[in-house]
Amino acid sequence: MSSTDPTEEFVPFTTDDYRARMARAAESAAGAGLAGVLVAPGPDLVYLTGYQPTAITERLTVLVLAAGREPVLVVPTLEAPDAAKAPGAAALTLRDWTDGKDPYALTAPLLDASGPPHGPEGAGGSRIGISDNAWAMHLLGLQKALPDTSYVSLTEALPMLRAVKDAHELARIAAAGAAADQAYGEILKVRFAGRKETDVAADLAALLLGFGHSQVDFTVVGSGPNGANPHHEAGDRVIERGDMVVLDFGGLKHGYGSDTTRTVHVGEPTDEERRVHDLVREAQQAGFEAVRPGVACQEVDRAARKVIADAGYGEHFIHRTGHGIGVTTHEPPYMIEGEELPVVPGMCFSIEPGVYLPGRFGVRIEDIVTATEDGGRRRFNNTPHEMAIVE
Amino acid sequence: MSSTDPTEEFVPFTTDDYRARMARAAESAAGAGLAGVLVAPGPDLVYLTGYQPTAITERLTVLVLAAGREPVLVVPTLEAPDAAKAPGAAALTLRDWTDGKDPYALTAPLLDASGPPHGPEGAGGSRIGISDNAWAMHLLGLQKALPDTSYVSLTEALPMLRAVKDAHELARIAAAGAAADQAYGEILKVRFAGRKETDVAADLAALLLGFGHSQVDFTVVGSGPNGANPHHEAGDRVIERGDMVVLDFGGLKHGYGSDTTRTVHVGEPTDEERRVHDLVREAQQAGFEAVRPGVACQEVDRAARKVIADAGYGEHFIHRTGHGIGVTTHEPPYMIEGEELPVVPGMCFSIEPGVYLPGRFGVRIEDIVTATEDGGRRRFNNTPHEMAIVE
Repeated sequence: MSSTDPTEEFVPFTTDDYRARMARAAESAAGAGLAGVLVAPGPDLVYLTGYQPTAITERLTVLVLAAGREPVLVVPTLEAPDAAKAPGAAALTLRDWTDGKDPYALTAPLLDASGPPHGPEGAGGSRIGISDNAWAMHLLGLQKALPDTSYVSLTEALPMLRAVKDAHELARIAAAGAAADQAYGEILKVRFAGRKETDVAADLAALLLGFGHSQVDFTVVGSGPNGANPHHEAGDRVIERGDMVVLDFGGLKHGYGSDTTRTVHVGEPTDEERRVHDLVREAQQAGFEAVRPGVACQEVDRAARKVIADAGYGEHFIHRTGHGIGVTTHEPPYMIEGEELPVVPGMCFSIEPGVYLPGRFGVRIEDIVTATEDGGRRRFNNTPHEMAIVE
Repeated sequence: MSSTDPTEEFVPFTTDDYRARMARAAESAAGAGLAGVLVAPGPDLVYLTGYQPTAITERLTVLVLAAGREPVLVVPTLEAPDAAKAPGAAALTLRDWTDGKDPYALTAPLLDASGPPHGPEGAGGSRIGISDNAWAMHLLGLQKALPDTSYVSLTEALPMLRAVKDAHELARIAAAGAAADQAYGEILKVRFAGRKETDVAADLAALLLGFGHSQVDFTVVGSGPNGANPHHEAGDRVIERGDMVVLDFGGLKHGYGSDTTRTVHVGEPTDEERRVHDLVREAQQAGFEAVRPGVACQEVDRAARKVIADAGYGEHFIHRTGHGIGVTTHEPPYMIEGEELPVVPGMCFSIEPGVYLPGRFGVRIEDIVTATEDGGRRRFNNTPHEMAIVE
């Protein structure tokens, strides 16, 4: 695989890959004391079966996993032909239901009510994990159908479900990162001064697609004071000479995510701008160097945050240091104080400290990284961290 | 407003509009015995506040409504500046929370635990409505924070929350329908035979955008046997002379939905194709004529279904007759057996019976309609129902 060739091809994941993922999920669930797992359309279902419904609607679609049983995918009859075409479909049983029937009554018997009892509440019944993004109406329907069962979100119960990537997944994340780096290299050549943020954002989106992304998730262009709002996307503001500009962009390539941030300057920066940029660069490096197998996720946050706090800018670093990435651009685990999950080889996540000076400017630098089997670490973004000067 | 002018402009909804909607929702909730309503990002939040977060993530955003209280929007600190710009923001209080804090503990006190007791389970505590599409992890977090409270989905508790459109909304739905009709008029002129379904679908999408849609939600092109799968979107199949082709397309214009279906034929149809098409046309007309204020939604389904069943094709009409439309293209109420909600003037929904002959072809005809104050009915799609012959 050439990481600079946007036309590169990957062998699709096979039925066996999905069978193995489902088996591992069911075993992990049993190990965590769960009687089963309910997987909703979205990233969990894509990861486990390769199936993505055309639309996520009020019609219940749910994958039911339990150790030692054949996986069952409950789908609306209308969508069964599409589901049957999913690459993981041959590793599961489809159970369809027609408009007007009760899909919860169909799903309930698939969950083993004789599973291990649930936690502290101790009212008996079994404990079931459910995708974070399952619809509340579906959870309520299942709670009614199985009143003695308790539920827990998958991120809480099985935080590692999608967190650790195998070699094929790492290759895809590397390819997505390399494509994002190529996009960054090209965006430095476009004109910034005198153009709207949305114009540069459109350039970034076109570059990501041009370098092989199938989907663009975000193209943040935060110029001048807009850069001080870390959630600002891109607006009508015309970029001026003298602006700091935060560029944060990513999406999916071959089904896996990219997400990188660099902060550039239009023309020469002031001493303060340079100082803040250097500080964030140092913080990012400190976060990266804290990554190694076995260290708690919160240690990565602490390492980056300490640099910024020690310089007196702690109150201006107003978000967590990072988030996981995989079949989405934004997922658990989180690099945040209180997250005691250990970093594991193959876990992929962002390190993206920032400093935000309200009404003035912001700086953020972000790479996707992973811990390696040899006890080290690796970046999937490799463009320079130095402040680039653009026109 | 000229319904054929794709450049028409609408006055945006004002803060007062959103204030009135939130007040009405809170009052309806109290009337339904709810202590409050939790509104998640998505169509409910758009409808009530005009606010649509850039992305729907694991970070809790929720609007809390309770009769006699100021609405409160709980948002992540990072997203507070965006939320503050929403057109409904001046009619509510923003309460932001920072990464690492417990957003459920922040939200819980906003719900009045002294509200009316909940239903048959009778275990005390109050009853809260929650958006259908709220994330299960957020519902679980709230259930833990308020264990004596019970929850019910908004579609179940307040099925009419967004169902009845005022004059400004009806004008938007009419404009969206007229634009979809224009797109249909143009698609009849393109070449079908020898082109892929996806090519015609791309034409349809471009036409919807050209006629003022901001968003295309679906462009179904189901040719020949693909038309017999009502959920088929568009694929690589090359359309041939002799194919029936189901065209079902829609999206949003000025924030409100369009959704229409016509079934066309490439060249001359057979007698059977003509007979089935006539049958579906008759069923659609029967469903339309059943619409009047006060009639149960299921009566619309029954009227359309009876025509098809009486002709011996009942087993081939495998979905409900219709669905509501508004700030989404697909929402409650549903025209389905068992739905006893009465049709109300201003309620907008589809009537879309179909006949699907597996492996052969399908026919579906769909208009968006509403019931009128004068006891009658109105279509928002007005292109001919007769089978168009395309090349």
